[in-house]
Amino acid sequence: MEIAIISTGNELLRGAIADTNAAWIASRLHERGLQVSRIIVAPDDHDELISVFRQAYNSFDLLIVGGGLGPTIDDMTARAAAAAADLPLVRSDDAVRRIFAVFERLGKHMNEINLKQADLPQGCEIIDNPVGTAPGFALQTGRAHAFFLPGVPVEMKPMFENCILPTLEDRRSGQHTSTFKCYGMGESDIQAALAEFPASHPGIELAFRPSFPEISITFRAQNAATLDAALAHARQILKGTVFAWEDIDIPTALGRALLDKQFTMAVAESCTGGLIGHEITQVPGSSAYFKGAIVSYDNNVKIDLLGVDRQLILDHGAVSAQVATAMAKRARTLLHSDIALATSGVAGPDGGTEEKPVGLVHIAVAHEGGIEHREHLFKGYDRARVKKAAAWIAMQMALNIISEKR
Amino acid sequence: MEIAIISTGNELLRGAIADTNAAWIASRLHERGLQVSRIIVAPDDHDELISVFRQAYNSFDLLIVGGGLGPTIDDMTARAAAAAADLPLVRSDDAVRRIFAVFERLGKHMNEINLKQADLPQGCEIIDNPVGTAPGFALQTGRAHAFFLPGVPVEMKPMFENCILPTLEDRRSGQHTSTFKCYGMGESDIQAALAEFPASHPGIELAFRPSFPEISITFRAQNAATLDAALAHARQILKGTVFAWEDIDIPTALGRALLDKQFTMAVAESCTGGLIGHEITQVPGSSAYFKGAIVSYDNNVKIDLLGVDRQLILDHGAVSAQVATAMAKRARTLLHSDIALATSGVAGPDGGTEEKPVGLVHIAVAHEGGIEHREHLFKGYDRARVKKAAAWIAMQMALNIISEKR
Repeated sequence: MEIAIISTGNELLRGAIADTNAAWIASRLHERGLQVSRIIVAPDDHDELISVFRQAYNSFDLLIVGGGLGPTIDDMTARAAAAAADLPLVRSDDAVRRIFAVFERLGKHMNEINLKQADLPQGCEIIDNPVGTAPGFALQTGRAHAFFLPGVPVEMKPMFENCILPTLEDRRSGQHTSTFKCYGMGESDIQAALAEFPASHPGIELAFRPSFPEISITFRAQNAATLDAALAHARQILKGTVFAWEDIDIPTALGRALLDKQFTMAVAESCTGGLIGHEITQVPGSSAYFKGAIVSYDNNVKIDLLGVDRQLILDHGAVSAQVATAMAKRARTLLHSDIALATSGVAGPDGGTEEKPVGLVHIAVAHEGGIEHREHLFKGYDRARVKKAAAWIAMQMALNIISEKR
Repeated sequence: MEIAIISTGNELLRGAIADTNAAWIASRLHERGLQVSRIIVAPDDHDELISVFRQAYNSFDLLIVGGGLGPTIDDMTARAAAAAADLPLVRSDDAVRRIFAVFERLGKHMNEINLKQADLPQGCEIIDNPVGTAPGFALQTGRAHAFFLPGVPVEMKPMFENCILPTLEDRRSGQHTSTFKCYGMGESDIQAALAEFPASHPGIELAFRPSFPEISITFRAQNAATLDAALAHARQILKGTVFAWEDIDIPTALGRALLDKQFTMAVAESCTGGLIGHEITQVPGSSAYFKGAIVSYDNNVKIDLLGVDRQLILDHGAVSAQVATAMAKRARTLLHSDIALATSGVAGPDGGTEEKPVGLVHIAVAHEGGIEHREHLFKGYDRARVKKAAAWIAMQMALNIISEKR
């Protein structure tokens, strides 16, 4: 089966954003054992789109097209998709009903212009959009089964997962898979650690999917015994770096561990600025274990509100083991939690010194049994990555401590 | 001039990584006023590459190819590039000398296998690689001037900047653009508001780029007078929804407004869980105006730490105008800031009631002149979108209040 992904959008061709949609779709197909032959980015131009679609209809068996389904004049996928298939564009009553229903559900005003999104190639199959107003559609034309989806990731992803993936043959059939989530090692280091796997475990296929700062590793085999042997071996090698033996992220794993042990959590954040609280509260149900956070960005907030000793900051600086440790202890006391995390660091791009360069982060975790501290230097990371890396280390330290408690 | 970028590599087609190289090249070309017509990702497969190259040689005037120049068996760009151009592959003495020189400079041992990188299409022009061992090359074939570069970003980027960009005509002259950033209107509403533009401002090209919950609108024209007239008209129409007359996000605009007025800011977050603090501190230099946040997720934290009256919560519930208002006032006092934001809402998916459904958010801003409150119901939004929408409303309310102050 020849598969192509087509992304439309001038913003992609101007380089304003990278085509992460195509990478996401490709990885989901790959997990099912389906290999993509081509990714094509095409402009918001009627004639160019027709030419790209026409060629793709005749060259590929499966076609996933993303983007250009919105209501505005630069959204021209449906018209071009129809023209390339020699089909008229017609207003679909079914699509009109769905668009009305979405606006009603969102309690929003609908413009006449939104009805443009109901103009679809005659005879196409409509794909429901659970999030936004633009329905997707599917066409059988030429050699291709072609699916057309919006370009907005939060709309595209559930539509692809719910309406397209289930219709595709699972090439893994008879395939056994297992996914680990790792943190703390680079992709190439994990690859190096597993370098002997192709030789020592014939029949095992490995796939890596990094999503900074986490990496998922999927093991795939044709029979269960091969998979089990490889997993047992991999568990030994990767023990220190795997935080979940399933496909969940660290905030979710941390939440489950807290619920499991019936612990509560609080945070004192400096350089992470609220990111740890934000990530913890992305998990549904986090109010059961998350008390809250004090984001003490200003040193006076560390002193007046959090209650860190002013002299400690004068003696050691805010970015120090002493202050991070005091922050964690104070947060645990003030917010009445079982566990408390604290971060203090230099996120950059300015504010670094020779002694305390950009990327230096102190992290502390206070718990009933005591306090743990770690210091990290993230060289060459930008501000956003320093914050994220610090938040992830803090959450993983907490996860390890909780896992060791009874 | 028709321009295409081709990236080779199975890792891109497996979705292990997104094609950030192509986005980078496209943005560098765009800065020179050169528009890319197509980005194509092709597999590490000899026949597929020949087919993609042959078609591209005849369809595009400028071709930038990245990847597949390394020494290993899955590096097959040079051989396919030659075959597609009906040229023999020959070992280039010049390339051999360059490869030797790089190994000598790096003090590394050279394998016989590295000489494969000197096998290039006959008559091509060699492009020096200042970082790695694989030289690039350029071919004039068919309609195209084709450049072939390594896929490793740190090698590709200087080669592109130093050897390719300077040879390209600068097309910026004659192009005038301006970008507005909007918030609070849907893409279709903005489009409807500007519906008459194509007729009333001929020669103006509009491009919309939504990045939830913000939308950027770019105006482009061949001459400055056309652009200026359209901008003046658009400014009138979009006044209420534009938060920046340039391409920056709300946290950045808020930061600039705070710096401009020399105000400081603090946050009391409930349903947003730390997101506002996180977004404010994504902006470099935010420590100059951001004091910190109290994330009072648990009601006892609202009472004990933030100092909200317990009776107020008992009487009105935590998700209420009264409590949000009290949170903002208390945060302003406790954190000694000029402005303080507060959020309290039901992010879902659970926790909604008939009276206070999922998606209900109360937002308050306390400032020297008093306090403002808004209530929103985000119907059909998931947890992450409720949090983000609430955070953006809070920041925009603050931005408006600050802008009105002297």
